[in-house]
Amino acid sequence: MDFSTQFNYYVARTEKALDQLLPPAATRPARIHDAMRYSLQAGGKRLRPVLVQSAAALFRAPLHDPLPAAVAIECVHTYSLIHDDLPCMDNDDLRRGRPTAHKQFDEATALLAGDALLTYAFELLTHHYPADPGFALVRELADAAGSRRLIGGQMEDLLAEKKSDATADELEFIHLNKTAAMIEASLVLGGLTSGATESDLAALRVFGRELGLTFQIVDDILDATADSATLGKTAGKDAQAGKTTFVRLHGLEGARRFAREHTARALASLTKLPGDTAFLRQLVETMLVRNH
Amino acid sequence: MDFSTQFNYYVARTEKALDQLLPPAATRPARIHDAMRYSLQAGGKRLRPVLVQSAAALFRAPLHDPLPAAVAIECVHTYSLIHDDLPCMDNDDLRRGRPTAHKQFDEATALLAGDALLTYAFELLTHHYPADPGFALVRELADAAGSRRLIGGQMEDLLAEKKSDATADELEFIHLNKTAAMIEASLVLGGLTSGATESDLAALRVFGRELGLTFQIVDDILDATADSATLGKTAGKDAQAGKTTFVRLHGLEGARRFAREHTARALASLTKLPGDTAFLRQLVETMLVRNH
Repeated sequence: MDFSTQFNYYVARTEKALDQLLPPAATRPARIHDAMRYSLQAGGKRLRPVLVQSAAALFRAPLHDPLPAAVAIECVHTYSLIHDDLPCMDNDDLRRGRPTAHKQFDEATALLAGDALLTYAFELLTHHYPADPGFALVRELADAAGSRRLIGGQMEDLLAEKKSDATADELEFIHLNKTAAMIEASLVLGGLTSGATESDLAALRVFGRELGLTFQIVDDILDATADSATLGKTAGKDAQAGKTTFVRLHGLEGARRFAREHTARALASLTKLPGDTAFLRQLVETMLVRNH
Repeated sequence: MDFSTQFNYYVARTEKALDQLLPPAATRPARIHDAMRYSLQAGGKRLRPVLVQSAAALFRAPLHDPLPAAVAIECVHTYSLIHDDLPCMDNDDLRRGRPTAHKQFDEATALLAGDALLTYAFELLTHHYPADPGFALVRELADAAGSRRLIGGQMEDLLAEKKSDATADELEFIHLNKTAAMIEASLVLGGLTSGATESDLAALRVFGRELGLTFQIVDDILDATADSATLGKTAGKDAQAGKTTFVRLHGLEGARRFAREHTARALASLTKLPGDTAFLRQLVETMLVRNH
């Protein structure tokens, strides 16, 4: 199977699992479950669930189905987008061409739907796995989503937006936590469902961190260089907002060099992993050269 | 030890554990940890952590320290208050005489601090307990806090506020989920840390549900009958807002009779539990006759 066929296969399995594993929209109270489904089923790349499944596939015949963990990660990702879109945060009316949750429903429902998706991730992990590996899955996800990682990255990002002189150190903290933490967790969760060893998990963690950093730096490069039509969203938004970006701090050439270095480190980590790592290799290479 | 000395002892242990178990305020990013501590250390009755500890005390020499579970429950309770106070929900400026989180910081910080406290509850449970009983603790807490219970109760409460003709069934759903779910979970978590059996847990669950319902009905009675000075908050608020309350649906005498019936059921469940249940008996009796 070539890379994009494999990617689409993982995405299709994710969509099906999302539909099957979420509480039915009619579950009481219907409005909250309707809002959870609305945001979760809005499409998107499904990068994190793909990573969970592709990490699980590296190891011997899967011990446990990786899909509940993949859905749990996507629930946490979606909750963070819903809360990020709220008026008190980024105040976005549209996401992927559709009204954001607080526009489609109302602010209170969006707030609660975000809370519910975060909580549901832990319901999923404790109802679809036994304590081994379920307990480790919960710990990994809670740490990645917590105040020192995902939420910490969002907090620091909000603070950085208010000043045009964020430092390289602050920007690195944001990238490592707002973006890389959940990508790293996706790979670790996949490994945990399939009996990865401690050293496998360490290699997956490095791969996730470097993939996440590549992803974020390329995002900054595209924001500074691509036109809106190619990008599929408003280009130059960060620069206009006076936000400190990777490109602004290190220059375009510097940013491109950093992206290549992170890609190289991601590829190096793959050599420490068993199984067929071709899919993950192509994923990080595609990430580096993407134009949208 | 008499009842109130025992209660205060549990509260003092809770306050100490809150300070010890939360990330230090200076942990990066400081602002989010500062906001988490601000809301969590605002005082309050600490009813839920007291319940965790008193349930744990019923069983043989504690297998595990109940305090991390007690703090986890209080984190979830506090997150729900922070989000409930936001402008898009109840829009409250004050809680327990202090500015609410979004007034003291800003809305975005309050939103993220709530998210962080919810997540931190699961970090605590997975870092302070082994998989047994940690995994069961996570499952119980996630279910109680999820879209079918705590959040579902809040959603239904919001919907009920918009109409003056909520039904007895809707009101029962709100009481069972917005109020009783976390009280029930507190008792079950306490039992789980101390090796309670399945039948112990079932009795604790009944006790928690009946205690929670008593608590909520008495709240409605006090709102309708007490003066603001005794209550320590504005009395008659619900009636003025045109909100359907238990008293409005069943009359004062009906509400009082329901409260007595739930208390009786709570007391009956205690006879199925081992150990000295005097504290829990006095707690529910005190709850029934409280005037604020």
